Amino acid sequence: MFDAYGTLFDVYSIARLAEKLFPGKGDALATLWRDKQIEYSHLRTLCSMYKPFWEVTQDALVFSCRKLGLDLDLDAQQALMSQYAKLQPFPESLDVLQQLHEKGFRLALLSNGNPEMLEAVVKAAGMQQVLSHLLSVDSVKKFKTAPEAYQMATDLFGVAAKNILFVSSNCWDVCGASWFGYRTFWVNRNDAPLEELGVTPNGQGRSLADLPAFAEKERATA
Amino acid sequence: MFDAYGTLFDVYSIARLAEKLFPGKGDALATLWRDKQIEYSHLRTLCSMYKPFWEVTQDALVFSCRKLGLDLDLDAQQALMSQYAKLQPFPESLDVLQQLHEKGFRLALLSNGNPEMLEAVVKAAGMQQVLSHLLSVDSVKKFKTAPEAYQMATDLFGVAAKNILFVSSNCWDVCGASWFGYRTFWVNRNDAPLEELGVTPNGQGRSLADLPAFAEKERATA
Repeated sequence: MFDAYGTLFDVYSIARLAEKLFPGKGDALATLWRDKQIEYSHLRTLCSMYKPFWEVTQDALVFSCRKLGLDLDLDAQQALMSQYAKLQPFPESLDVLQQLHEKGFRLALLSNGNPEMLEAVVKAAGMQQVLSHLLSVDSVKKFKTAPEAYQMATDLFGVAAKNILFVSSNCWDVCGASWFGYRTFWVNRNDAPLEELGVTPNGQGRSLADLPAFAEKERATA
Repeated sequence: MFDAYGTLFDVYSIARLAEKLFPGKGDALATLWRDKQIEYSHLRTLCSMYKPFWEVTQDALVFSCRKLGLDLDLDAQQALMSQYAKLQPFPESLDVLQQLHEKGFRLALLSNGNPEMLEAVVKAAGMQQVLSHLLSVDSVKKFKTAPEAYQMATDLFGVAAKNILFVSSNCWDVCGASWFGYRTFWVNRNDAPLEELGVTPNGQGRSLADLPAFAEKERATA
């Protein structure tokens, strides 16, 4: 079970377009945009004020530009959002999914993204064939790390959480999934320290390329 | 009803001690520490993994130092945490509370802090006489912005949320309180843009000094 944003798709790849639109501020905008997107998803879930991730993403963009003093006109907003709809995958993403698929693993997404977003980004990356399901939290109207979001996969597959390996580059997401009971693999792309939440992922790597070996080992001992 | 941290007490005042301990990194540590403290409180609430704010604050400090590459030995940790226990109030905090108290407003705290933290910080600031209650989310084991946290005040006073004015410098807290139904006043100390959460506070000021006039107006129209 894969997280989408940050894990298969590079949310910071948007910085290049942001840099073109707002010279000298591309990285700052990409970083703040992402942080706010996640913060808003948590706040809305805590208060049962769900709205689709696409709208939350747009709200976060508007706030971030205002905070950074950037003049986000309608053209710039549409350009950035439409780039978000087809975010670049990481260089190894498709290859790793194909490897795992060929080894007989059943692969799916479990994402905050609403269905339209997930379909668009997966299609743009040519991953439709290797992902059997695109699970969107839109079905439960709660963003991760709400247990109801993680539960979608155990409900769908009818297996215990400990029989599912959840893969994310977002350490907070790994912690939420571990608390829920999943086996977890943290794609720690930036060699970040582990969040101090009392959780240790079952496996860890610097990119998705480290996943297949771990997944095989997990299957052997399951 | 007042939020405590950031509103009456300056969470960034810790930067001075942090700067002494880690020259050149005081501001970065104070900022990251605060961000992580809030993030951990949200994540733990989303997943029903409550633990007291004192411990969450300590976890956030440990993570932040690790992330910034700072060597946090036991002495430094104890020094920073003990400073946190008696955080400086803002220059106007006590005076504004006294003004409101004299005008006959009933004043209380509603804070993420656990009771020991709140008692210590309020006592150190000499605010015991003007705050009738120190409500800690520790009673409901959910941090703000969970509705259960805000509900403590309506339960205690037996009045509708719309008859309580909630004051916070944290815009996310103002949004949570507004969603719950409180009247809200945002102490916008840094002239920040409003969060894009579909909420507008009922009042706003640059410091607590702007509050008494607004509170009087609220009372007159209530």
